[in-house]
Amino acid sequence: MYVVMVYDVSVDRVAKVLQIGRRYLTWVQNSVLEGELSPAQLARLKAEVAKAIEPTDAVRFYVLPSRAVLRIDTLGQQKNEPGQIL
Amino acid sequence: MYVVMVYDVSVDRVAKVLQIGRRYLTWVQNSVLEGELSPAQLARLKAEVAKAIEPTDAVRFYVLPSRAVLRIDTLGQQKNEPGQIL
Repeated sequence: MYVVMVYDVSVDRVAKVLQIGRRYLTWVQNSVLEGELSPAQLARLKAEVAKAIEPTDAVRFYVLPSRAVLRIDTLGQQKNEPGQIL
Repeated sequence: MYVVMVYDVSVDRVAKVLQIGRRYLTWVQNSVLEGELSPAQLARLKAEVAKAIEPTDAVRFYVLPSRAVLRIDTLGQQKNEPGQIL
């Protein structure tokens, strides 16, 4: 499945949430990560993020059956793309 | 089509980009808006955002054939949902 994670967390917890997200997904834009995950990986990612955040934080996971159903249009600067070799 | 817009723009331009986004989509989380758009509406939204931002800003539009292909999992606070009556 293809997952887009968007987080809005307190500045105290941004580094931790980003660090967790990067272990599973590719950072593409400020507070946005993307990538292919198995259902088990997504469950682990969510469990780790849930432990790191507070109830006032907000995180959304957009879960798609595959990258193929998704079109991504961008404006402005492209910071990174999943699958890009750095 | 179902559209998720995520923006990362300079603080000087946040209010303008949010104002444009809200005319087409529903705000769901800091810097994230969602909703159903026709291809023509998406084209207009992108044209308006393109005029409002600078090359250092970044905006991503995730474009899906329909809301039905998308699962949205959330953690923490749910701020708003498209279709919710306020």
